[in-house]
Amino acid sequence: MSYFGNVQTIRYEGKQSTNPTAYKFYNPDQVIFGKTMREHLRFSVAYWHSFTANGSDPFGVGTALRGWDAYTGMDLAKARVEACFELLDILDVDYFCFHDRDIAPEGNTLQETNQNLDTIVALIKANMKASSRKLLWNTANMFTHPRFVHGAATSSNADVFAYAGAQVKKALEQGKELGAENYVFWGGREGYESLLNTDLGFELDNLARFLHMAVDYAKEIGFDAQFLIEPKPKEPTKHQYDFDVATTLSFLHKYELIPYFKINAEANHATLAGHTFEHELRLARVNGVLGSIDANQGDMLLGWDTDEFPTDLYASTLAMYEILQNEGGIGRGGVNFDAKVRRSSFEPIDGVYAHIAGMDTFARGLQIAAKLIEERALDNVIEQRYSSFKSGIGAEIAAGRANFHTLEAYALQNKPIFNESGRLELIKSIVNQYIINT
Amino acid sequence: MSYFGNVQTIRYEGKQSTNPTAYKFYNPDQVIFGKTMREHLRFSVAYWHSFTANGSDPFGVGTALRGWDAYTGMDLAKARVEACFELLDILDVDYFCFHDRDIAPEGNTLQETNQNLDTIVALIKANMKASSRKLLWNTANMFTHPRFVHGAATSSNADVFAYAGAQVKKALEQGKELGAENYVFWGGREGYESLLNTDLGFELDNLARFLHMAVDYAKEIGFDAQFLIEPKPKEPTKHQYDFDVATTLSFLHKYELIPYFKINAEANHATLAGHTFEHELRLARVNGVLGSIDANQGDMLLGWDTDEFPTDLYASTLAMYEILQNEGGIGRGGVNFDAKVRRSSFEPIDGVYAHIAGMDTFARGLQIAAKLIEERALDNVIEQRYSSFKSGIGAEIAAGRANFHTLEAYALQNKPIFNESGRLELIKSIVNQYIINT
Amino acid sequence: MSYFGNVQTIRYEGKQSTNPTAYKFYNPDQVIFGKTMREHLRFSVAYWHSFTANGSDPFGVGTALRGWDAYTGMDLAKARVEACFELLDILDVDYFCFHDRDIAPEGNTLQETNQNLDTIVALIKANMKASSRKLLWNTANMFTHPRFVHGAATSSNADVFAYAGAQVKKALEQGKELGAENYVFWGGREGYESLLNTDLGFELDNLARFLHMAVDYAKEIGFDAQFLIEPKPKEPTKHQYDFDVATTLSFLHKYELIPYFKINAEANHATLAGHTFEHELRLARVNGVLGSIDANQGDMLLGWDTDEFPTDLYASTLAMYEILQNEGGIGRGGVNFDAKVRRSSFEPIDGVYAHIAGMDTFARGLQIAAKLIEERALDNVIEQRYSSFKSGIGAEIAAGRANFHTLEAYALQNKPIFNESGRLELIKSIVNQYIINT
Amino acid sequence: MSYFGNVQTIRYEGKQSTNPTAYKFYNPDQVIFGKTMREHLRFSVAYWHSFTANGSDPFGVGTALRGWDAYTGMDLAKARVEACFELLDILDVDYFCFHDRDIAPEGNTLQETNQNLDTIVALIKANMKASSRKLLWNTANMFTHPRFVHGAATSSNADVFAYAGAQVKKALEQGKELGAENYVFWGGREGYESLLNTDLGFELDNLARFLHMAVDYAKEIGFDAQFLIEPKPKEPTKHQYDFDVATTLSFLHKYELIPYFKINAEANHATLAGHTFEHELRLARVNGVLGSIDANQGDMLLGWDTDEFPTDLYASTLAMYEILQNEGGIGRGGVNFDAKVRRSSFEPIDGVYAHIAGMDTFARGLQIAAKLIEERALDNVIEQRYSSFKSGIGAEIAAGRANFHTLEAYALQNKPIFNESGRLELIKSIVNQYIINT
Repeated sequence: MSYFGNVQTIRYEGKQSTNPTAYKFYNPDQVIFGKTMREHLRFSVAYWHSFTANGSDPFGVGTALRGWDAYTGMDLAKARVEACFELLDILDVDYFCFHDRDIAPEGNTLQETNQNLDTIVALIKANMKASSRKLLWNTANMFTHPRFVHGAATSSNADVFAYAGAQVKKALEQGKELGAENYVFWGGREGYESLLNTDLGFELDNLARFLHMAVDYAKEIGFDAQFLIEPKPKEPTKHQYDFDVATTLSFLHKYELIPYFKINAEANHATLAGHTFEHELRLARVNGVLGSIDANQGDMLLGWDTDEFPTDLYASTLAMYEILQNEGGIGRGGVNFDAKVRRSSFEPIDGVYAHIAGMDTFARGLQIAAKLIEERALDNVIEQRYSSFKSGIGAEIAAGRANFHTLEAYALQNKPIFNESGRLELIKSIVNQYIINT
Repeated sequence: MSYFGNVQTIRYEGKQSTNPTAYKFYNPDQVIFGKTMREHLRFSVAYWHSFTANGSDPFGVGTALRGWDAYTGMDLAKARVEACFELLDILDVDYFCFHDRDIAPEGNTLQETNQNLDTIVALIKANMKASSRKLLWNTANMFTHPRFVHGAATSSNADVFAYAGAQVKKALEQGKELGAENYVFWGGREGYESLLNTDLGFELDNLARFLHMAVDYAKEIGFDAQFLIEPKPKEPTKHQYDFDVATTLSFLHKYELIPYFKINAEANHATLAGHTFEHELRLARVNGVLGSIDANQGDMLLGWDTDEFPTDLYASTLAMYEILQNEGGIGRGGVNFDAKVRRSSFEPIDGVYAHIAGMDTFARGLQIAAKLIEERALDNVIEQRYSSFKSGIGAEIAAGRANFHTLEAYALQNKPIFNESGRLELIKSIVNQYIINT
Repeated sequence: MSYFGNVQTIRYEGKQSTNPTAYKFYNPDQVIFGKTMREHLRFSVAYWHSFTANGSDPFGVGTALRGWDAYTGMDLAKARVEACFELLDILDVDYFCFHDRDIAPEGNTLQETNQNLDTIVALIKANMKASSRKLLWNTANMFTHPRFVHGAATSSNADVFAYAGAQVKKALEQGKELGAENYVFWGGREGYESLLNTDLGFELDNLARFLHMAVDYAKEIGFDAQFLIEPKPKEPTKHQYDFDVATTLSFLHKYELIPYFKINAEANHATLAGHTFEHELRLARVNGVLGSIDANQGDMLLGWDTDEFPTDLYASTLAMYEILQNEGGIGRGGVNFDAKVRRSSFEPIDGVYAHIAGMDTFARGLQIAAKLIEERALDNVIEQRYSSFKSGIGAEIAAGRANFHTLEAYALQNKPIFNESGRLELIKSIVNQYIINT
Repeated sequence: MSYFGNVQTIRYEGKQSTNPTAYKFYNPDQVIFGKTMREHLRFSVAYWHSFTANGSDPFGVGTALRGWDAYTGMDLAKARVEACFELLDILDVDYFCFHDRDIAPEGNTLQETNQNLDTIVALIKANMKASSRKLLWNTANMFTHPRFVHGAATSSNADVFAYAGAQVKKALEQGKELGAENYVFWGGREGYESLLNTDLGFELDNLARFLHMAVDYAKEIGFDAQFLIEPKPKEPTKHQYDFDVATTLSFLHKYELIPYFKINAEANHATLAGHTFEHELRLARVNGVLGSIDANQGDMLLGWDTDEFPTDLYASTLAMYEILQNEGGIGRGGVNFDAKVRRSSFEPIDGVYAHIAGMDTFARGLQIAAKLIEERALDNVIEQRYSSFKSGIGAEIAAGRANFHTLEAYALQNKPIFNESGRLELIKSIVNQYIINT
């Protein structure tokens, strides 16, 4: 049985290969800074885009041609598991991710829903054991069902808050059962449509209460996955509470949740918030909360989350640059393709091509970033630019020994101030050489 | 001597008045919720837009016709002081705001620059005494001069950091001398053009060091003004560090500066960051840091800070709604018109018309917001929407007594979940009635 | 049988009414400039939003509670017709609009699909006769079905082009049968995802061929409706060919289609294209192609088509201003609510409230615009601003008698050039008075 | 005398060179498709950015260090000419462009202004003769001076229209004198701030009258340069009349100016209008009006014209792809760097680095695009996608022989419709290989 046609496992053939089912840059065994590409990148396939969604958009029904669509109900759920592990084999990717509702359908009661989950989790576990594939993270879908129309943990309806608690409780148990390395909280409908009918302060308090309960319960059951929050600024709600990395940090600080969470940063969410992806990664990095990434890209001229497979070498280079500079690299996180083929790429093989495109783009980004770091192409620039803080008044400032009196005394000497050019145009042309010459 | 022609002090004539030099809605003595409009709104004129800037834009030189442009140097600085107090008289506005470099020119040395400041500060003080006008806030311009090309407190050049320290030291002294009620930190060029040549972590550390020094020095000299940070997401730098309220809060938390700062929120900065103005005000309010506002408006189809005088009644109503709901209202802050006449409104009288337009817009917004609150038009909606948290499982959640076990037990009862409509269309039509009928 | 509960026909009660099921501003019989409000506004209900769509969004399934959802297939189609005429009665609105696929489901063959349409068209016709309601316009849905994944008239697949031709042929016949006053071409998926795989020139040629065929066929069958193109810049495709009014005009000019088409302008499409709604209306007006409007509004901070019911009085005032200034007003067109209730406004009554909100907003806009025109509030400004073209060199220019020689001769006299202020701040404050005082 | 330090003429050293003052990709003598790179690219330096502007922005004064700033008045103008020809020599670039006011200051009268121009034009002509450098295009600055506050040809003031006519008359004479290959009309302030005080129809009529006069006068004096319009959507005015290529085409059609104008497309203007650069080029190409390009790039997260030197290889590849596909390539046009160094790149050498960066980016883009074309990497995709139009009903459609009767007859056969995947992810990964492997 094959859902993807006669595709052999994708192998590395090098950058000149014209074989569409070969990696041109991703060589899993290539060692960079003492780790293999496979270890650096920890690629992951997203269950929802690859096995659950169907290519529909607000103006049209699904277009995706998928062998498993012949099934329904739990049979469909089981077929998707097969398809998932087949694709992981084809791509030779180690990790996958899912929402609870991706893998199993809701039943008529919460009990039945949970039984459906148990059945599929057992099937997934068996497949994991047989294949050595691993769960990068799981999460709970608390946005598709109409009950979540006003949010989940931030719903104006206490019954919905309760239901969400029960659902995340179960999801944490699933994660533990499958040895998930992370557990992700993406805001779903945690946000608002209008302040005219919203008690923002109360909703944020409730969100904090909910996350504290999750922390407590994971501890209780010994589920030691890294907890991750995934910021997004808008869509589906007009304002999502976890707008961006900084907003998430301010929330975590206020509610004393800082010790328990890191960030799962998504490229297209970053740009929707008005930031570059590398900005969000850098900000997470300097705050010690860079946990994992959702690798995709948006269309900078469109105002919604397009979740395209990443093909921009500039973006992948700068993302991998941040990850390589992060202490421990991507750590327990990974590079998850929260990306979907275009609606017009509806054949099963398109999903294979798309993952190859994304993996090659990140592999090449890794190579370029590593060379930039190895040759100190940017580090030398930075070191030189800030060198005035290595001695004299600069060193005093950096050491925290200066105050307005000492600064004024220094300034009143009226020594001429010389700035140096930031040299951005030269630096960008050098980055271009690295992209081509690496 | 008059810089604004034969304009008498603007008086309230009511909403049917066709006199362009009359207030139609701003009736300073009208009492609302026990305070006069004057006390609620604490209007302020911005020195830079009204007396220093000249209507230039990136594509053209200044167009503004201003009597004081006949002068240069310190004479010009003195003429501007006269013009300022004349305009305050014409408008009968109590407050004004300035950057240090708005009021006095730089000299050849920092000493000379400071002497220039001392001269003008003395002149301003005399005018204040004679007129009972007050300084809402002052601040330091650390972005116009080329020395600040790479920022001030976040410059890559330690000499610039030192200069900035000396400059803010002096500015705090000016504030104390003039009895400023607040002191504002707007980021200027504290941000970056590109991460390729920026040590973001170090720059943020330096910014925090700088603000701590300011806090320490104000305490030392007994300057008890409220310190305010004014967020802005971009412009002049590609990324400004104080992106929005949430970003500012995350920074203040991290660097233990939370006790010392509130927010000066600007309407057009909010929209550039992807937020409504009311969102920024609400977020500041629920975090206890709503300090003051810069009242203006942007063009939602343009991507830069247009600093238009506010004329949108929806925006002013929702802004005043947040301020009225804030504990203590606007407090020591005020409604400062960080707004400029269009380049094509270049006659002196246009500045008068523009302030009337802005003041009437906010006065009307205050009236409407007060009526909304008085009649509980929105409060009743909110109270009803969240009523499920008043008893039962909702009350347990709100009281912090629930956990995932109790929530699951509740959810497993499978009681049907009923949500109620958010009724946004009806609510918006009611707001329209308030705008018209108030 | 009622799908909207016990709602009586909505009546005008005046602006102080607190009855949620009453018009506060829309008084159908009020006469303005010799026509009733009903005649000026020609309101229309959109079948797709009100009877076909269900409140789903890309992150969640439908939430709308609708009595007719108990039915399926042709029974559902028939129930929707009943619901439509019930809502028209409740609102006392004269017009409605539909896509072919809104009213009847596709069958297994095109023949069967057409038979389904015939059945429902006959039912609609009977209802129209019984109620005196009228069809403002109809159109063809050529974007929902997977066959249109690459477009319809601009599909890369000739079979799809042919199918689209057959579909529009039938739609024109439906329009004739029902006496539609207009027929609308909205681009659907006529556009592209990427130029990398698109022959833009060929696709535009095909689109022009298609429209010429439609013009020819309408003439052949004697269907004399006004043909309208509805511009939209993006969504669902990355670039839609009918980007905005100007783009549409350039296309119509190039392919000699100018005589046959006018514009159906939509508010939210205008803002997505970077324009105000009034800009699109003005541009259409001065080009003689203002045909009809889709009344809705977007969220200026969101980058997709939110299709909200219009509640902004500024926008409705300026839209009605353009329509009143248009020769013949809205003519055979109308004010169609291409608007949907928020997903969180899921009760049947929300659709009633939403239409009331939209109708009142446009009715008030009509009143304000009429008063602005009657009192020449803006006309006097315009007349004064351009008065220099009434005599002397200006009159020569306006009459087309000037050339660079005469202009140079005039300029070389070096008479001082005096510009007058544009007075925008004053004008905007006057508009605010009209909004409140009308 | 040198304004750029000890910089030798920049030579090609190949992609591995680490010499900052060498070309890595631009090899002027490399032959591609029978023409040298020099002939394909026709690079041009923009006078205004490189010699007139000083690095100021709305928040700060100029930072650029420039040897010629020691001069004033006509001496400054002369020094700039020297600097210009020195930079052209250093870069070995053949072309330059200017606005009239870039090269010579205004005098007290129009006569004096024209004399200043005559003096500098003579000096430029002498330098051109001595160096074989050429004028790609000239234009008139009708936006910097306050007289143009309301526009030039679309000013509400007839005196300003006349002045503009005199100015363009003179500019056309300058172009003829210097053998300019093109003459550019960029809108400057031809647009509006608000419709509330604007007679849009009259202003557009005036703009058309003005352009007809320019066409007539050029013909009269035998100036045979290609006339180009440069679209821009906003900035400095809120709405610029030449919004984008399509808008410009609609205007040219309406006013029967189509035969006389082509387009000068600018990358950053394209993106501000919501288009990719390649879209604007493609649209110009299929309409036969692709004339020249302003090569720069914007920051996709910023909403204003940043005019950065182009360094994005994706954008330059797709731009050169359109130009290579254009009949006659760039023709009499060229690749003009309407780009400025960042304000923080203030040293003279930064301008050299920046031009190298831009030229290498376009040279590499040319190489990649040529290889894509040579190997039919995209052409084969396109040919296959549209192959259904080569025979049968498709061929009938393409030949203009189909109508709704024949299409319906074809569709009613109910043959299954098979679409093929658009394969975008695969295509994008192939483009990445071309970027790296070329």
